[in-house]
Amino acid sequence: MAVLTPQQEDFPRWYQDVLTKAKLAESGPARGTMVIRPNGYAIWERMQAEVDGRIKAAGAQNAYFPLLIPMNFFEREAEHVEGFSPELAVVTHGGGKKLTEPLAIRPTSEAVIGEYMAKWVNSYRDLPLLLNQWANVVRWELRPRIFLRTTEFLWQEGHTAHESEVDARQYGRRILHDVYRDFLRNVLAMPVIVGRKTANERFAGAENTMTCEGIMRDGKALQMATSHEFGQRFSRAFNITYSSAEGSIELCWTTSWGATTRMVGGLIMCHGDDFGLVLPPAVAPVQVVVVVVKDTDGVVTRAAAALVEELAARGVRVRLDVNVGQAFGWRATDWDLQGVPIRVELGPRDLAESAALLYRRDTRDKNKISIDKVVAEVQRLTGRIQSDMFEAAMARRDATISDVTTLDEARDAAQTGVARLPWDVVGTAGEQDLATSGLTVRCLQLGDGSLPETDDHAGALAYVARAY
Amino acid sequence: MAVLTPQQEDFPRWYQDVLTKAKLAESGPARGTMVIRPNGYAIWERMQAEVDGRIKAAGAQNAYFPLLIPMNFFEREAEHVEGFSPELAVVTHGGGKKLTEPLAIRPTSEAVIGEYMAKWVNSYRDLPLLLNQWANVVRWELRPRIFLRTTEFLWQEGHTAHESEVDARQYGRRILHDVYRDFLRNVLAMPVIVGRKTANERFAGAENTMTCEGIMRDGKALQMATSHEFGQRFSRAFNITYSSAEGSIELCWTTSWGATTRMVGGLIMCHGDDFGLVLPPAVAPVQVVVVVVKDTDGVVTRAAAALVEELAARGVRVRLDVNVGQAFGWRATDWDLQGVPIRVELGPRDLAESAALLYRRDTRDKNKISIDKVVAEVQRLTGRIQSDMFEAAMARRDATISDVTTLDEARDAAQTGVARLPWDVVGTAGEQDLATSGLTVRCLQLGDGSLPETDDHAGALAYVARAY
Repeated sequence: MAVLTPQQEDFPRWYQDVLTKAKLAESGPARGTMVIRPNGYAIWERMQAEVDGRIKAAGAQNAYFPLLIPMNFFEREAEHVEGFSPELAVVTHGGGKKLTEPLAIRPTSEAVIGEYMAKWVNSYRDLPLLLNQWANVVRWELRPRIFLRTTEFLWQEGHTAHESEVDARQYGRRILHDVYRDFLRNVLAMPVIVGRKTANERFAGAENTMTCEGIMRDGKALQMATSHEFGQRFSRAFNITYSSAEGSIELCWTTSWGATTRMVGGLIMCHGDDFGLVLPPAVAPVQVVVVVVKDTDGVVTRAAAALVEELAARGVRVRLDVNVGQAFGWRATDWDLQGVPIRVELGPRDLAESAALLYRRDTRDKNKISIDKVVAEVQRLTGRIQSDMFEAAMARRDATISDVTTLDEARDAAQTGVARLPWDVVGTAGEQDLATSGLTVRCLQLGDGSLPETDDHAGALAYVARAY
Repeated sequence: MAVLTPQQEDFPRWYQDVLTKAKLAESGPARGTMVIRPNGYAIWERMQAEVDGRIKAAGAQNAYFPLLIPMNFFEREAEHVEGFSPELAVVTHGGGKKLTEPLAIRPTSEAVIGEYMAKWVNSYRDLPLLLNQWANVVRWELRPRIFLRTTEFLWQEGHTAHESEVDARQYGRRILHDVYRDFLRNVLAMPVIVGRKTANERFAGAENTMTCEGIMRDGKALQMATSHEFGQRFSRAFNITYSSAEGSIELCWTTSWGATTRMVGGLIMCHGDDFGLVLPPAVAPVQVVVVVVKDTDGVVTRAAAALVEELAARGVRVRLDVNVGQAFGWRATDWDLQGVPIRVELGPRDLAESAALLYRRDTRDKNKISIDKVVAEVQRLTGRIQSDMFEAAMARRDATISDVTTLDEARDAAQTGVARLPWDVVGTAGEQDLATSGLTVRCLQLGDGSLPETDDHAGALAYVARAY
């Protein structure tokens, strides 16, 4: 059963095939929207739990702000309204009547949260104010693609206010590193390039946007999460002030940071292969499936159920497949498609030998082992697969990166991968030039991997690629 | 420090005071919307976790459907569109252009989910299809009140399709009892009246709506959660069919069921007192606060921190208050306001006696106990407070219910509490008559507490009350 278009043949079609056949998501009825099916949503729920735990560990508290924002709120920060107004969905009627002031569906919540920060912050004792919300947002999308670019998407958006520029900078970087990079590496097994966006690619209204860029199996980049420094722009626009210990009235320094359902698309395209999804154990809703290959008298099923129980008792997310009415090959193909990291196969012949087959999805290796070693081996493999998948993704990513020295070489290299070259060779003019070939500067990074402190930090390297 | 308007003086103002002073929520900028602050959202998160676990145990899977629904979807089920169109918020412009077809912001998702159920269900093998989503919805609200009635609110909405009427009925009741009633009793410590809505109070498009009605401390009722049977109405409107084992094409039987952020309001008004929130331990974001009353040399703080560590290790949600710069009385008042179930107070004099004060918020009793007994006593009290709060709420609820025999008596009794009388004394005409006095039939129930099977089940009793 050939299920998917091979990646080499047509990567975008492979991606669409995976979404459909693994029942992850499909298009919604309104243009650009999506329906996230249970298989896809279960992945997002695992992502939420992991990101949420890290956000709370960084001291931010969850809250909820309204979906509908009066239009005049956006107009208070000039760059912000300029960036977002072309993407707004606007409610003009409510309760059967035309509204006196139209309401925008939030494309992001700086404006409404700024209004409340101004109310809640009085003294330096109220700072830092560290808020986060899990919400849906709407940005009108001309070229929608499921998970990657949809009119409505789900995300978390953090918004913080600080007493000083240094505090704000440190916190925005803490989120970038301890929440996003840590989650992407250790849960999604994705090696990301952490850098500073160019002025051209900054979030509308930000003074600095920092990003985690993932590299997909087709060599294209995908922005996985971003952290923004606003300086005092939003504080000025929304009058977010505090009285200092010395009694003076000061403007706060604010940040925002977000990660979206786009990460599900990134996970698929970073690890997936021609057999379907390949999920790292840390994010897999089902980590292990125990498959009864065949059974005539219930003995195999009982042995399989005992294994499931033992694994579940050890905290493994495990499922039992006793669907013997369906051909084993069909089921194996389907579990491959779903990307379940480990499969334990058990049939009458195996059981007679007190053995089971252990299959790992990432390498597709199969090993026969003694049945009483299954639990220990599954636990060992879970950690092993997680680190092997990260290493493999890292090797693939590094293989796509070419160090070049001219704009022309960058343009060539970025046709199939990522070009790295000195930012001063590119510059704003070069960036515009690359755009005509559909290429963008994904981010800037210093030679030691650290973040440039300014738009023109000496020695900064630019990563140039095609991007989703 | 008198913080709150006493309940007896002005209950609605007391409620508003609690929202503001405990920093739970406030009004949003667009009419009828609300901002849920971290203290309020932490309660909602605990509710979500408990409800979500029960929904999953009942076999339903989470998914996500779009916020924006084409207007024509609503028009397919006549009663549904009639009920919801006066409340719709309508998007007419997107991406800077007028839309060819306006989009409604979902007020509920039967229509869009029906469309996808029709695509996903083919054979009887695909049934039951058990879906749930956590989402925001918008219903234009003329008399908004925070948590109770807001233009935008958060909820879960379950949607299921079944092979037979019996399956659908059983599942709708399972959700009503095993998810909602169980959660309301055992987590929120709320004794609810479980019954059938009258035809007049049914969800738009439903053939039967079942409800859990909570009774607040002012004797008014609040609908806490509902479960609806649609028969084959939505299946017919959206063409949700399956091929049976015999090969015939049949219409499915569908249900939906939901519980909202309104439950936060119900929790406040069912248990709160003149000192603020009173939270049952099972839903309290902070179950225990260990308060350092005074400290000069750090010894008390170290002892308090050790207690916190020990409690946390036992899974207690515990917070340390070492804010000795602020007067103890002020802090005690604030922890009362927040409704934290148990307070452990520790000062130098207590420590010298190897003692601590244990305070329970529900009864406001204070006991001095040996410090080495604190952990065990906190664990015992946690369970005890939970059951005592349920019993107290049950006693209050029962005291508000008057058995009466005529419509006039019902009208009198329902001025301050709940009137119970035979439904055949009320009837549809009596229901309309009660409405002129601002009273509604909250639900119908049989004498043994079970659900009436029809709108005119013989012997059914009506619960009549004012309601939020």
